[in-house]
Amino acid sequence: MNPIEGHLPTRSPLHDILAPTGIAVVGASADPTKRGYKAMVGLIKDGYRGEIYPVNPKADMILGVKAWPSVTAIPGSPELALICTPAPSVPGLIAECGRRGIKGAVILASGFAEIGGDGAELEREMMEKARAHGVRLIGPNTSGIFNLHHKVNLLALDNVKPGDVGIISQSGNMLLSLALEAQHNGQVGFSTYVGPGNQSDIGFNDYLRYLGEDEHTRVATLYVEGFRDGRKFLEVAREVTAMKPVVVYKSGSTEQGQKAASSHTGALAGSYAMTVDLLRQAGVSVVQYSDEILPVAEGLGLLQKARGKRVAVISDGGGQATIASDRLAEAGLELAELSEATRQKLRDVLFPQASTVNPVDVAGSTDANPSLLATCMEIVAADDNVDSVFLVGMFGGYSIRFAESLLGDEMRGAEAMVDLSNATEKPLVIYSLYTPIKPPALRRLHEAGLPVYASIEQSVRVLSALGERGQYLAQTNRQARESAVEPRPELTAMFQQARAEGRDLFEYEAKRLLRDHGVQVPEERVVRDEAELADAASLFAGESGDTPLAMKVVSKDILHKSDAGGVKLNVVGEAAMREARQAILASCLAYDASAEIEGVLVTPMAKKGVEVIVGVIRDPIFGPVLMFGLGGIFVEILEDVAFRSIPLSRFDAESMVEQIKARKILDGVRGEKAVDKAALVDLLLTVSRLVEAYPALSELDLNPVIVNADGYAVVDARVIVERDAESTDKDADA
Amino acid sequence: MNPIEGHLPTRSPLHDILAPTGIAVVGASADPTKRGYKAMVGLIKDGYRGEIYPVNPKADMILGVKAWPSVTAIPGSPELALICTPAPSVPGLIAECGRRGIKGAVILASGFAEIGGDGAELEREMMEKARAHGVRLIGPNTSGIFNLHHKVNLLALDNVKPGDVGIISQSGNMLLSLALEAQHNGQVGFSTYVGPGNQSDIGFNDYLRYLGEDEHTRVATLYVEGFRDGRKFLEVAREVTAMKPVVVYKSGSTEQGQKAASSHTGALAGSYAMTVDLLRQAGVSVVQYSDEILPVAEGLGLLQKARGKRVAVISDGGGQATIASDRLAEAGLELAELSEATRQKLRDVLFPQASTVNPVDVAGSTDANPSLLATCMEIVAADDNVDSVFLVGMFGGYSIRFAESLLGDEMRGAEAMVDLSNATEKPLVIYSLYTPIKPPALRRLHEAGLPVYASIEQSVRVLSALGERGQYLAQTNRQARESAVEPRPELTAMFQQARAEGRDLFEYEAKRLLRDHGVQVPEERVVRDEAELADAASLFAGESGDTPLAMKVVSKDILHKSDAGGVKLNVVGEAAMREARQAILASCLAYDASAEIEGVLVTPMAKKGVEVIVGVIRDPIFGPVLMFGLGGIFVEILEDVAFRSIPLSRFDAESMVEQIKARKILDGVRGEKAVDKAALVDLLLTVSRLVEAYPALSELDLNPVIVNADGYAVVDARVIVERDAESTDKDADA
Repeated sequence: MNPIEGHLPTRSPLHDILAPTGIAVVGASADPTKRGYKAMVGLIKDGYRGEIYPVNPKADMILGVKAWPSVTAIPGSPELALICTPAPSVPGLIAECGRRGIKGAVILASGFAEIGGDGAELEREMMEKARAHGVRLIGPNTSGIFNLHHKVNLLALDNVKPGDVGIISQSGNMLLSLALEAQHNGQVGFSTYVGPGNQSDIGFNDYLRYLGEDEHTRVATLYVEGFRDGRKFLEVAREVTAMKPVVVYKSGSTEQGQKAASSHTGALAGSYAMTVDLLRQAGVSVVQYSDEILPVAEGLGLLQKARGKRVAVISDGGGQATIASDRLAEAGLELAELSEATRQKLRDVLFPQASTVNPVDVAGSTDANPSLLATCMEIVAADDNVDSVFLVGMFGGYSIRFAESLLGDEMRGAEAMVDLSNATEKPLVIYSLYTPIKPPALRRLHEAGLPVYASIEQSVRVLSALGERGQYLAQTNRQARESAVEPRPELTAMFQQARAEGRDLFEYEAKRLLRDHGVQVPEERVVRDEAELADAASLFAGESGDTPLAMKVVSKDILHKSDAGGVKLNVVGEAAMREARQAILASCLAYDASAEIEGVLVTPMAKKGVEVIVGVIRDPIFGPVLMFGLGGIFVEILEDVAFRSIPLSRFDAESMVEQIKARKILDGVRGEKAVDKAALVDLLLTVSRLVEAYPALSELDLNPVIVNADGYAVVDARVIVERDAESTDKDADA
Repeated sequence: MNPIEGHLPTRSPLHDILAPTGIAVVGASADPTKRGYKAMVGLIKDGYRGEIYPVNPKADMILGVKAWPSVTAIPGSPELALICTPAPSVPGLIAECGRRGIKGAVILASGFAEIGGDGAELEREMMEKARAHGVRLIGPNTSGIFNLHHKVNLLALDNVKPGDVGIISQSGNMLLSLALEAQHNGQVGFSTYVGPGNQSDIGFNDYLRYLGEDEHTRVATLYVEGFRDGRKFLEVAREVTAMKPVVVYKSGSTEQGQKAASSHTGALAGSYAMTVDLLRQAGVSVVQYSDEILPVAEGLGLLQKARGKRVAVISDGGGQATIASDRLAEAGLELAELSEATRQKLRDVLFPQASTVNPVDVAGSTDANPSLLATCMEIVAADDNVDSVFLVGMFGGYSIRFAESLLGDEMRGAEAMVDLSNATEKPLVIYSLYTPIKPPALRRLHEAGLPVYASIEQSVRVLSALGERGQYLAQTNRQARESAVEPRPELTAMFQQARAEGRDLFEYEAKRLLRDHGVQVPEERVVRDEAELADAASLFAGESGDTPLAMKVVSKDILHKSDAGGVKLNVVGEAAMREARQAILASCLAYDASAEIEGVLVTPMAKKGVEVIVGVIRDPIFGPVLMFGLGGIFVEILEDVAFRSIPLSRFDAESMVEQIKARKILDGVRGEKAVDKAALVDLLLTVSRLVEAYPALSELDLNPVIVNADGYAVVDARVIVERDAESTDKDADA
């Protein structure tokens, strides 16, 4: 259950299926327009060394390979079957595969759960057969798989070369698009591709675990429409990202996109913002645009991680230095402040009109001497204030633009950059406006493992991903398990009683739970009669006797207290309290005559401060998730909320508070003091621990929590109790 | 002065300079590393047909052309001089050029105002000579110019072809980058390029006017670090965008970028958000990223404008349809709702498993028949609910991916798309994942003037620009001049008196100005003594006598009324008013014993509603600008503000209210009614008219204005009075 303590099994069962010693092609065909033909061609052309068993009742030979009339008739025991036949034939074929000892099947057909109705029924039937016969399924509704290091190329893609980028994509066109980009780029190669399709059996978490283990994969790259078991995926992602980069493009950033995804793979969308937060929490590099996927994957695979956000820009054009500065700032990266020693070294090699303030603008110094750019990169890379180096401009094109005779010097510059990249632990990110025409110096860089990017924008996304990854890995040693809290028997009993009564916790119970675990909740009393009211009045009177109080109805039947007239604020003095209590009771009974009223809660009004919200939700895909944001319009209109999967590390809690756009308000505006963020972080961590300690705590809503420079106060608290769906208690209540 | 009524002169003087009949190359050289060599090569190689006069005291011939020892020695009268010599030589050379009758000079050298100090002095000296001798200057600190239709290629760029994209760029590298992109793209060509450099003489507005008039330019494309005369630029842009698209990339979106720009071209940055709003108001297509410039320029030049935001997506892959849906929604575009008739026509040609709900997913229907994609495009283009058509997927690559035999059908599909683009008034935007490898069908489309984009993201930016431009042009007929207001003599006198007293308007004067011109300002009285207080008490008592009042000090010496204890709210009844007045007077005198206190302003408390801010500022670059936003954190923390250049059209005012992110709050949240937006729009228009009617109105701040379903109330108003810098009145006061 606990993702941090969990361990991956030693080896994913997918290795056998994805690197099979034999493959049955069910629905193999000699018709070039059929997928059963394509797959045969792919295997034969790429030189697959295992056994191939074409299955087709109407053919004896297909592409020179002996064909078999049925799966049952195959003589050997291939590990994998590719099923190219239409949806209705699939359940029967899966059963046959199982009987033949086939371990896994790739099912291309669509027409299953993604179309609903009969399709969903067919998918259930197929899964039953698969479980009964021990066959693992890839798909259905998938474009297929390849594993280029084992010469398994069931898609028969031309022009893809073996390499170290693994891809799991719910879009076949996305794979094709990446393959064509790679072909054009000339350097990127691929290890394994899988289209998970509807994920009826094997899901993203299984595939990611496989890529994590796969020695040929250096970067795992995923196009995801929806996760089946998001919580499991996060667990696997946390393990894999500790070893290698994981790049995810998640579709459905808008309602419009979620609808489209659902009709494509039947994926459950969920909140995009939440998904992105949870993936990042697990160390995943999330890309926002589809045209960033390959550049970011290549950069993460090849370049050093950045230790921080401070970038040194070396540029031979002031305009592009300006553009780079804008993009870096927008991405939350900083222009490194170069040390005086560094600036002096730059002055020593550059013309006097050069700018040695970052962004460095060589201002013509390199026109006759482009290898000087490498010298500048070396100088700034040696500066302790610099975390990464960004070359911007026309390197690679000097010999084209100025004089052919500069080619030698440019090639020397390229070699110096390659040497530097091997000598430094800082990433060198290179943008050249000559990238589209691939001149020799850029080809040399690329071949030596230094990618060259085609736009400033792409480069900055790579710098940003390198920085995020470096930061993530640096803080994992701070990810030590936060001490858990021990559940207290009397509080566990409180949950049990609420459950027995078919209700959630009363506000005062929720507050007791919090208070007993060290959360700052202002003192309060539930007043059931006049005597208790008098006690409360004297308790809260304060020295001057005029402490303003808040009074609220306590009733399991009244959810919207304000609407029922169940709330009175700024009540001062016993007489006014008495009056307020009567008014609340009258108003609530008028609102709901059958409401059972427990009493009236009395508490001092909260001090001034910023209203924040802390919540726990149970997401159907990701399980228990903590949310944090500022109250009011920030949540409702601006959706300015941070999410983290529970349990949280201290780093998670801290980063959550810093993530929201409205953090400036927490830092103090209009002369207000900054709020006590450390106290807020403790609150978030405590809530996270409570969710673990009390499994009956299903959801929680602290709204508002008032936070100021002196700490915070939980003003209102709701706790939803986990109930069995078939609860007899609930039935008894009804 | 008035940009709407202004008229462009019949012909820009730049035509002569940019299409000269003769060119002097001052500093011409036989050394291939020098710019004075490059320019000669460019002119000779491109076949420039005018006279070339190399100027170099040390050479008789340069590249086979007779050289002259000085500008004075040139026998003819070239229209243009290219000056390649260092900065200190420039002022003297400009004088010589003038004496020789040369109309314009391009000055490459840097080392002028952008480095400050001596450089700024040198620039002043150069400008003096230029004015004295009637020479117009391009630069300094420029990469030069070209005019390919006249074979003037002073940059000696290879591989650029004449075409219809004009470029004005303060970055030479940006021009190079666009040229290389165009070379790779294969279809885009250029007309004129100018690097404005420091704009000491000729500025962006002049260059844009030239491109507007230039018959060879279909799209004007600008990279801008800073405008010199922003208001003039907007005026010219408004005229040019009515004729042809103008694409602007403005650098300095961040403080970091603004600093870099300032050290590059000495540009004054100004607010990026304001600049973007004002450019859009003038019909400019603003692009946010440098790698969008060429795709957007090409699309705007070649494709039809969209009449609206409703896009029909035709896709052969569900994943990419999903990505397209997300990007469209993010860009504020909509998926068109296809009519039942359209869906039936799609069903008639597609497989049953195809999705005919937009995004249309052909789901394999086109695998053996790719020209069907053109049929689908034709079907949706005929639907009245569709404003533009977006093809997404692998068109062009069917013959590569599936079977070579499909090439013929693909070429037929391409022809059908070309025919459709000629027959329909709706834009067809095509993305293919095969764009990087340029297969024949895509080449055919491109040659026929249908650009093919390399990513979904780029395509959506083009769709968005087409939609914005269509909308802009559609509303220009609504841009009729709003009726002006006549200044009233007594209000003009009020301004004069304030100016004479060396002060801004008092709040009650500002409100009188507004009220007298129909703005809803709650009634109020300035109370100077007990008798006036009694009058005010009876005036505002209301029927029940308990109308809560606001009271505020009136004094030119007290700017921050609250800090001085000069404000009391919710005052009820004459006795309380008396007490409040005494308290205000005492407190203000304690705050500033020498303050001259006019009286105390009394007004009923405003009704509940949303707080908005309306302001007028005088921007040093753009002149009078109106701003609108929600009050409090929206302005201060989120910078959620809209700007428009004054005067505003009704469309401008309407679009301003709809532009802010917090508009949901105006539309009503938590069950509140929507506010009266029409009243708000009238307020904005009235303020705009007041600025024109009263030139002494320098700045204005209505903060807050409370707006609700019944209208608005201006609660506080400040008006800053335009004063002469050397005002003797002010001196007399001091």
